[in-house]
Amino acid sequence: MSRQFLAEGLELSGGDRGLVAVVAVVALAALAVGYVLLREVLAAGQGTSKMQDIAKAVQEGAAAYLNRQFRTLGIFVVIVFVLLFALPAEDIGERIGRSLFFLVGAGFSAVIGYLGMWLSTRANVRVAAAAKESGGREKAMRIAFRTGGVVGMFTVGLGLFGAALVVFVYVGQAPRVLEGFGFGAALLAMFMRVGGGIFTKAADVGADLVGKVEQGIPEDDPRNAATIADNVGDNVGDCAGMAADLFESYAVTLVASLILGTAAFGAKGLLFPLIVPAIGVLTAVIGVYITSARTGENGLTAINRSFYISAVISAVLCTVAAFLFLPSSFAGLAGVSEEIAGTPGNPALIAAVAVIIGIVLAGVILWLTGYFTGTEHKPVKEVGRTSLTGAATVILSGISVGFESAVYTALVIGGAVYGAFLLSGSVVVSLFAVALAGCGLLTTVGVIVAMDTFGPVSDNAQGIAEMSGDVDGEGAQILTELDAVGNTTKAITKGIAIATAVLAATALFGSYKDAIEQALRDVQVGLGEVPVSFTNVVFSPNVLVGVIIGAAVVFMFSGLAVNAVTRAAGAIVFEVRRQFRENPGIMDGTVKPEYGRVVDICTKDSLRELATPGLLAVLAPIAVGFGLGVGPLAGYLAGAIATGTLMAVFLANSGGAWDNAKKLVEDGNHGGKGSDAHAATVIGDTVGDPFKDTAGPAINPLIKVMNLVSVLIAPAIVGFSVGAGESAGIRYAIAIVAVVVIVAAVVVSKRRGTAIADTPAEATTSA
Amino acid sequence: MSRQFLAEGLELSGGDRGLVAVVAVVALAALAVGYVLLREVLAAGQGTSKMQDIAKAVQEGAAAYLNRQFRTLGIFVVIVFVLLFALPAEDIGERIGRSLFFLVGAGFSAVIGYLGMWLSTRANVRVAAAAKESGGREKAMRIAFRTGGVVGMFTVGLGLFGAALVVFVYVGQAPRVLEGFGFGAALLAMFMRVGGGIFTKAADVGADLVGKVEQGIPEDDPRNAATIADNVGDNVGDCAGMAADLFESYAVTLVASLILGTAAFGAKGLLFPLIVPAIGVLTAVIGVYITSARTGENGLTAINRSFYISAVISAVLCTVAAFLFLPSSFAGLAGVSEEIAGTPGNPALIAAVAVIIGIVLAGVILWLTGYFTGTEHKPVKEVGRTSLTGAATVILSGISVGFESAVYTALVIGGAVYGAFLLSGSVVVSLFAVALAGCGLLTTVGVIVAMDTFGPVSDNAQGIAEMSGDVDGEGAQILTELDAVGNTTKAITKGIAIATAVLAATALFGSYKDAIEQALRDVQVGLGEVPVSFTNVVFSPNVLVGVIIGAAVVFMFSGLAVNAVTRAAGAIVFEVRRQFRENPGIMDGTVKPEYGRVVDICTKDSLRELATPGLLAVLAPIAVGFGLGVGPLAGYLAGAIATGTLMAVFLANSGGAWDNAKKLVEDGNHGGKGSDAHAATVIGDTVGDPFKDTAGPAINPLIKVMNLVSVLIAPAIVGFSVGAGESAGIRYAIAIVAVVVIVAAVVVSKRRGTAIADTPAEATTSA
Repeated sequence: MSRQFLAEGLELSGGDRGLVAVVAVVALAALAVGYVLLREVLAAGQGTSKMQDIAKAVQEGAAAYLNRQFRTLGIFVVIVFVLLFALPAEDIGERIGRSLFFLVGAGFSAVIGYLGMWLSTRANVRVAAAAKESGGREKAMRIAFRTGGVVGMFTVGLGLFGAALVVFVYVGQAPRVLEGFGFGAALLAMFMRVGGGIFTKAADVGADLVGKVEQGIPEDDPRNAATIADNVGDNVGDCAGMAADLFESYAVTLVASLILGTAAFGAKGLLFPLIVPAIGVLTAVIGVYITSARTGENGLTAINRSFYISAVISAVLCTVAAFLFLPSSFAGLAGVSEEIAGTPGNPALIAAVAVIIGIVLAGVILWLTGYFTGTEHKPVKEVGRTSLTGAATVILSGISVGFESAVYTALVIGGAVYGAFLLSGSVVVSLFAVALAGCGLLTTVGVIVAMDTFGPVSDNAQGIAEMSGDVDGEGAQILTELDAVGNTTKAITKGIAIATAVLAATALFGSYKDAIEQALRDVQVGLGEVPVSFTNVVFSPNVLVGVIIGAAVVFMFSGLAVNAVTRAAGAIVFEVRRQFRENPGIMDGTVKPEYGRVVDICTKDSLRELATPGLLAVLAPIAVGFGLGVGPLAGYLAGAIATGTLMAVFLANSGGAWDNAKKLVEDGNHGGKGSDAHAATVIGDTVGDPFKDTAGPAINPLIKVMNLVSVLIAPAIVGFSVGAGESAGIRYAIAIVAVVVIVAAVVVSKRRGTAIADTPAEATTSA
Repeated sequence: MSRQFLAEGLELSGGDRGLVAVVAVVALAALAVGYVLLREVLAAGQGTSKMQDIAKAVQEGAAAYLNRQFRTLGIFVVIVFVLLFALPAEDIGERIGRSLFFLVGAGFSAVIGYLGMWLSTRANVRVAAAAKESGGREKAMRIAFRTGGVVGMFTVGLGLFGAALVVFVYVGQAPRVLEGFGFGAALLAMFMRVGGGIFTKAADVGADLVGKVEQGIPEDDPRNAATIADNVGDNVGDCAGMAADLFESYAVTLVASLILGTAAFGAKGLLFPLIVPAIGVLTAVIGVYITSARTGENGLTAINRSFYISAVISAVLCTVAAFLFLPSSFAGLAGVSEEIAGTPGNPALIAAVAVIIGIVLAGVILWLTGYFTGTEHKPVKEVGRTSLTGAATVILSGISVGFESAVYTALVIGGAVYGAFLLSGSVVVSLFAVALAGCGLLTTVGVIVAMDTFGPVSDNAQGIAEMSGDVDGEGAQILTELDAVGNTTKAITKGIAIATAVLAATALFGSYKDAIEQALRDVQVGLGEVPVSFTNVVFSPNVLVGVIIGAAVVFMFSGLAVNAVTRAAGAIVFEVRRQFRENPGIMDGTVKPEYGRVVDICTKDSLRELATPGLLAVLAPIAVGFGLGVGPLAGYLAGAIATGTLMAVFLANSGGAWDNAKKLVEDGNHGGKGSDAHAATVIGDTVGDPFKDTAGPAINPLIKVMNLVSVLIAPAIVGFSVGAGESAGIRYAIAIVAVVVIVAAVVVSKRRGTAIADTPAEATTSA
């Protein structure tokens, strides 16, 4: 028997297959455009040999980290591959496809991440070099943004190609195979996000604590042994991690739409979600190519303009596509159930409006995030002004900004979900509308990735310029300006990423319900006999307990991530102090510090630290599902999505606001650099570092990993809970193993202790 | 027709009525014991005339604030009274009773709050005086703890008396009348919590920013114009606010048990939830009288011992009562439905285990909170040690401690709910078991209130001692020690309060569902015709949107509370600076500052600031319920409970950890007072102030207010949504009005601006 959202009998017509092939070709074209942009970036000048040396150290450090990370994760991926293979499936083809495309999803995620890192470690020096030339501002910005464009093109190209391939090969079985694809992408992205996030902020915080705070030397001073690690961190965290994360957002949203599509729109439902992002490829190309700052114009204005132009083009083209491709009544859809065929409403109109909701949502989040984290708006200005009354008020006002912006962002996202949901009276169609809103958001992802990668590349360029001392005057000024723009684009990307997470998770939520109902039918339990907890879930206390646990896991995950950063930063503080102490020549500038050792420590610590949050994400839904049942697991997902959304935005935006409040003071407000006000904002910025770059953005893949794990295990939970295969023993054994592993992981990471806290008192005063 | 959880036909036998009367007498006895303790406290010596002058200023300020607050809230209470009267009811008697007992609940909450404030402003000076005498430590501790005992006795006495009275008069209709009683108690407590919380922390933060940070004068220095306001704040926030809050926890938990009791246990179900807290009265008396520190023993050890002893006595007596009073099978219960009568299981055993779960939960939370916020355990020690690397690491480690302890506390509370839920296969009985676990927790409330009031009384005593300069040497040492003990007992109380909130809210959740089903029957919609959104709620996206909004409201409420504190603190900084500037004699100690003006500003600002969070709490469920429907409102409650639990514990415990980390440093660790490490922990403590004393504890009544509003409006929502009275116009009009009022309130409070941020730069440097 088939799941409601599957349609094994579904056949694509020749024309439809042709259309899928066209989408695949568009995806490959995106890769080709990416390659063209890549050549252009690499063709730019690389600056002085000193700059190239520094860039080389960063390249080597970043590559070494990612290679080691992939080796570590490889083991994990193999284990999950085997477990996934063991889970119930319709037939062997689906079983193999699901596991195979899990590997493909993970592989694509890794490739995008690696590419993001590889290219940005090469683009940074070129941006720095360009800033020195005449017309440097436009040139530097062009290289930085096109670097992002490469990553954006590969993100959408690989995501769309993978999805189109699965649809082409598996047709009716595609949804379940896509679950594997999405899961692979999300799982790897989560690990890269967490690991990279820990690396980058441990290096950053550690470097700042010893350099800026203890020794009073500037950021990126070459005497600080942690500077190379700091730059490596920008690339493995902000570039590799974020690229993988956005790829995963892209893939999972697409997967969710395709899962829901056939049930709602029949064969057309499997195709329309591919057409929308294919249009997105086109508009992304336009967006990347039209981005250039007019004379005297702020970089952010130029980037925003491209975004809005490409969003409007997307909206128009998607609307046209909807009305061309979809019929005006549900009865006109081939391959849908009788119930759906009788649904009133116009599928073309519903699809068009849903996609537009998603695009508008992206625009609103862009605006909201810009408002709350941009230096020219009231919130950051207020945080900046509170620096006059000290660090405590800076922290409090930043937290208020974070809370407030999280509320508005969550309400806007919730409004979009609700708006899409209202488009139809049928729950199945409503869910698909939510997924289509996600696809609408996706059309902007190409430009979003470009915007995001822009940030760390500019940051790195500034670092290289400062360390080499070879870029000064106007060139340095240009890089500082680009760096500030990058802070805001990074915050915007995080807002968009969490919005896709909520839309995709909501859609997956529907698919979770479907998986349960199908499993119940499979084990021969008539729906009339379904236990109360399976149908009437919100109101029973055990489901509420699920909601509480879901919210708790988000807090736990955030706490673990923040803790990992402070712990790893402590180890770096230790090492840099040791180098200063044992080799006084470093401070005089006569001896080069051992940059490599700090990179090594960061690498080792991040990989060790990512295990606990990673295991928590995968095992917590298993523990709840097998231990408490499918009702509480549904509650768990709802709790995790809701709390996760708010927490992610809170962490990202309070961090962004602190960072830019510091920039405000550094620009000469409230006493400028070196004042007490500046010291207060530096404290705010340091607190914000693990908020905005480690814990916050990792919540986005976390939500999707937990949702996909739940969808995948749902049939197994039902199988062990009711019917012939019922076995409380196995069910609880699985739950207990999951709990034991989580507890063991937490205990191990606790026993590592807080390295900072273990720093003996004398070490602080010696140098 | 009657609701499932009501039983109008229910009659109490003569014996049962007698039992209710006995409970009422026990409640009155508690009040009598409270009065005896009150006489004892007031009989103690009042110290020097200088000390009495200061105490008098605090008494007057606190009384002036509360009087003004009650006048303001009076208007609000009248409006709600009228609205409540307009809501659907079974008959006119229930309608009148519900509104009338709403006033009684609000009145009792106000009385308890006022009493807490009145007595603690008189006890503080007596504790300070006692510390000077020989054997001062025991005497001071005895007075402080017995002051708490008075408030504890009045809390349990009035709560139990009110509930017994309603049961005695209304019998079968008691549950709905009790909804009014609980709502009145919760609403007033929430306002007192928020208003008092803003007052106390605005004064505290403002005083610290100008005094400790800018002028470098000690805390509680009489030259600081904000010191009296700071002391007033301790009394109106920590004493009046917390006392009202705990009374409300007591009343609402009792209400939830009584609502669920008749459905599960028939007439016995209306009586047993009264017997358990009556036993609690007895054990509270024991707990208060046996508390005395042995020579050389830490005060906390003595208090914990009393707690555990009284908890064990409660557990034993409640078990005995369960087996004496309840039959061993459901068939033996009079007045239950046939379905319940056929339920397998032993009601006596279920009741006993449920009550014990609640008592054990209280013990575990006591231990957990003590572990995470006590100076002698690892977490606070680690936070203290991170002060060596500066304020940023102090903030980060405190946040980690907060996140972590929130997770464990939430899991423990969730575990207790789940454990109680598993006690029976029948959902109705399970819900009652959850409520009974809440009653078990209640048996400890007497001692808990005593523990809590102990904190601010000791804090104030220390303040008076320092300001008067009349207590020194060993006396001062004793008061410092008591103050530190008070920090931990305050954190423990908050943990217990949030646990009662979750248990009560879970039970009320069940009653919400019942209210909907009954309303559906009333409007003649067969359950078969009930729209999907009414029964199958967790899985549809609109319910998920409800969960997101519920979580968002908790963030919004927290943000508003924190913001209100920083805003009001800014106004105080301004005023104190003005006094220093315009009157140089203040700094020389030749002129007394105008303490009254600062108290006035605090009073005015807190009352203005409490409107927005208060309106949000009442109107948000109305907006969601009428705007989106009962399914999303259920999701909303689940989201608010889950996120609220975690947020409340996070805010309370990170604040507690920072406060005690500062104490650790002040005790001579890591450089001691005046060191950089000390400055770092002072920043942590200031950030923690509004966390732990304003936003965090207010979430507890918030959750219950929102749940009770939902239960009360559920029939009206259903009435406007389906059946003969259906009117989308009215429904949406109500929702729109609610949204408009919330938005207007937020806009108004935003336009007030952040006073701190508006401080002109020159004002910081002048003095």
